[in-house]
Amino acid sequence: MKNNKIQPSILPGFMELLPKEQQIFKDIVRKITKVYEENGFLEIDTPVIEKSEVLLAKSAGETEKQVYRFNKGSNDLSLRFDLTVPFARYSAQYFNELTFPFKRYQIGKVYRGERNQRGRYREFYQCDIDIIGNNKLSINNDSFVISMVSKGFKAIGLKKYKFQISNRKILSAILNNLEIVNATEVLILIDKYDKIGEEEFKKSLNELIGVEKADVINKIINISGSNESILDQLKKLNFNSEEFQKGLEELEAVKKMLKLFGVEDNEYAINLKIIRGLDYYTGTVFETFLMENEKYGSICSGGRYDNLAQNYTDKVLPGVGISIGLTRLFFVLKEIGFINSYKIEKSMEYLIIPIGDTLEYCTEIYKKLIDKEKYVEIYLEGDKLKKKLNYANKLGIQKVILIGEDEVISKQVKIKDMISGEEKIVDIERL
Amino acid sequence: MKNNKIQPSILPGFMELLPKEQQIFKDIVRKITKVYEENGFLEIDTPVIEKSEVLLAKSAGETEKQVYRFNKGSNDLSLRFDLTVPFARYSAQYFNELTFPFKRYQIGKVYRGERNQRGRYREFYQCDIDIIGNNKLSINNDSFVISMVSKGFKAIGLKKYKFQISNRKILSAILNNLEIVNATEVLILIDKYDKIGEEEFKKSLNELIGVEKADVINKIINISGSNESILDQLKKLNFNSEEFQKGLEELEAVKKMLKLFGVEDNEYAINLKIIRGLDYYTGTVFETFLMENEKYGSICSGGRYDNLAQNYTDKVLPGVGISIGLTRLFFVLKEIGFINSYKIEKSMEYLIIPIGDTLEYCTEIYKKLIDKEKYVEIYLEGDKLKKKLNYANKLGIQKVILIGEDEVISKQVKIKDMISGEEKIVDIERL
Repeated sequence: MKNNKIQPSILPGFMELLPKEQQIFKDIVRKITKVYEENGFLEIDTPVIEKSEVLLAKSAGETEKQVYRFNKGSNDLSLRFDLTVPFARYSAQYFNELTFPFKRYQIGKVYRGERNQRGRYREFYQCDIDIIGNNKLSINNDSFVISMVSKGFKAIGLKKYKFQISNRKILSAILNNLEIVNATEVLILIDKYDKIGEEEFKKSLNELIGVEKADVINKIINISGSNESILDQLKKLNFNSEEFQKGLEELEAVKKMLKLFGVEDNEYAINLKIIRGLDYYTGTVFETFLMENEKYGSICSGGRYDNLAQNYTDKVLPGVGISIGLTRLFFVLKEIGFINSYKIEKSMEYLIIPIGDTLEYCTEIYKKLIDKEKYVEIYLEGDKLKKKLNYANKLGIQKVILIGEDEVISKQVKIKDMISGEEKIVDIERL
Repeated sequence: MKNNKIQPSILPGFMELLPKEQQIFKDIVRKITKVYEENGFLEIDTPVIEKSEVLLAKSAGETEKQVYRFNKGSNDLSLRFDLTVPFARYSAQYFNELTFPFKRYQIGKVYRGERNQRGRYREFYQCDIDIIGNNKLSINNDSFVISMVSKGFKAIGLKKYKFQISNRKILSAILNNLEIVNATEVLILIDKYDKIGEEEFKKSLNELIGVEKADVINKIINISGSNESILDQLKKLNFNSEEFQKGLEELEAVKKMLKLFGVEDNEYAINLKIIRGLDYYTGTVFETFLMENEKYGSICSGGRYDNLAQNYTDKVLPGVGISIGLTRLFFVLKEIGFINSYKIEKSMEYLIIPIGDTLEYCTEIYKKLIDKEKYVEIYLEGDKLKKKLNYANKLGIQKVILIGEDEVISKQVKIKDMISGEEKIVDIERL
């Protein structure tokens, strides 16, 4: 057997954590989902494997190449590559049994066979919320979903983030007005602005649409100042387009409601360069960056769309949603040292150590503490005291309760603080 | 587009729940994992996809045919079919970074391409706990893991279950003593006892090993009475075998410790017919049945094994573990009506309904309630009152806070109880 072992390893691009970090990951997930649940988002859970014809109903573009697709029996199967497509399918499938507006959250693993790269994962958790309406959905929801992320980040103690918010209608109106035929290419270019830098951006834009039109666009997307001032400058353009005015109104409504939902002015910046790729967004779009760590890219993105489930139903389901890539976020938070100083809400508080034949008595103490909802373990092995204390040390258990035969007789316990080293004798009744 | 829709559907054998049942599923998972965490089990999370050579290191027997196995690029991949093999791999891989005894829990989806059948799922959640030691592990842990299930079931309000407990060493010793060569076949047969019934069992056993030996086995496995009495009868056999005596001692120790860990005598029955298939168990084995609903089979099983990770490492890691098939458990609990009357711990408490232009004021009330950790929603759409109240009704939200322009001026709110229909006016300060 000895020479016949299989090397224990996992595939590249898959994240696996040691228990200590796993506890932190779980704590983050719990705090964020608590915010969602307190605010009325209902969880759904969809299969990881679906029919390929369903998951790939709409060409998934670049993503399609990355899909894990295979046959089992006569079935053509794919692993989900996001949580949006399954949500669209779910909404269409159970339409008659859902209550609208439908506020759903979902957390689960998704799969993309991406090129192997540090910080890029092939299996990763997404944490999505969406609100969809039946035929219509108020603009109020756009700010509401952003406020959920703000609350979630606050709940985990993350402070230095900034939402970058725009509205697609504004740029779209301008491109229409300028009669730009290769609008898609222009949008892709703007999306890359931060990556390629101002100089190269301007050069490429000039090449694409000529200097004159490029100047108009440059002027618009570089409007800067406070959020209030940006909106003022946009208003003063007096741009003659219904679509533009609609976009502006929506952006103003988002700003107003953000405040009412508790998102402060310094948590976000209106930024007309935000495009969100070539996704299906049609109004509000936003990304989120860690301040001073923008190089890691957006840690949470989303926006407004006109119709979620058109591939599966005639029902019109407009909505607004956001997605947090939790696995990637965890990676980034580790990189910037956030995880290292993260304090989880609840961890093991007591280790009860029997010394001699006192296990029976130890279980009584254990029951007392468990009934008080304490986190408590009994050391059940017959090891030496040093090894038992070492167990507490390694796992960061703060208090050790030592119970020898003397303690059984005196109805007392000795509590040792593993950090200060302090010991005290406590009557059981007072525990 | 209209005639171009894809039928929204999922694959057969996959469970998907509506939001209301999903909330119950989540509540059950939360309560059970809370028990595990309070008692020092640390979560791990392993990839759903692993290298086939790793997952199938030990022939998975019947299961192997059911594995979802496919290629991506040059990789031979499989979806995990249980959480035990990944745990074995994990323990070997991170051995030096783990603290022993290592108490781990894991909840996740596993995949088996089983024959399509009602109540059988191809994707299902398992919820496992295991305690493994480095080289040795006290018998105390066997009772401890069973007590965890008892606490978990109590936490969700499940009462009518019974653990069926045995120790493999006892039957093994008897088969050895009788010099039975086809012991495996005999064990398989005993495992099927309840399924095939006494008569057919006896007939088949006679055919397998002859009447004389069959009589000995029949006598042993049918020893009945109280747990105490069964142990007494086994002792009185004075069976001359070290293995038998060891098994009996272990069973006695399990009984003693179950009591100390809070598992009452009426929660379990010693039953020598319990075998747990041809798994790797070597001592304590147990299954769990719903009383009066035994036909659904075991809802939670486990046992003691000598060496977890021998396919991956020379380290000897004995352990004891249990697994709850959550998806199947949920199905069974639905069948017996348990889910229907299940009360979740926390659900939406308030729906704030703006009447007229009072949204701004509503957000103030919302903030007050959220700060008190209440579950609260604001209805953000401009619908008619009837539709708004209907939303609360459909989602089972108990209290509706109606805020019209009068309420804004009087600094009061009107609270309507959706169950009793009762309305009352409350000062905001007293909310």
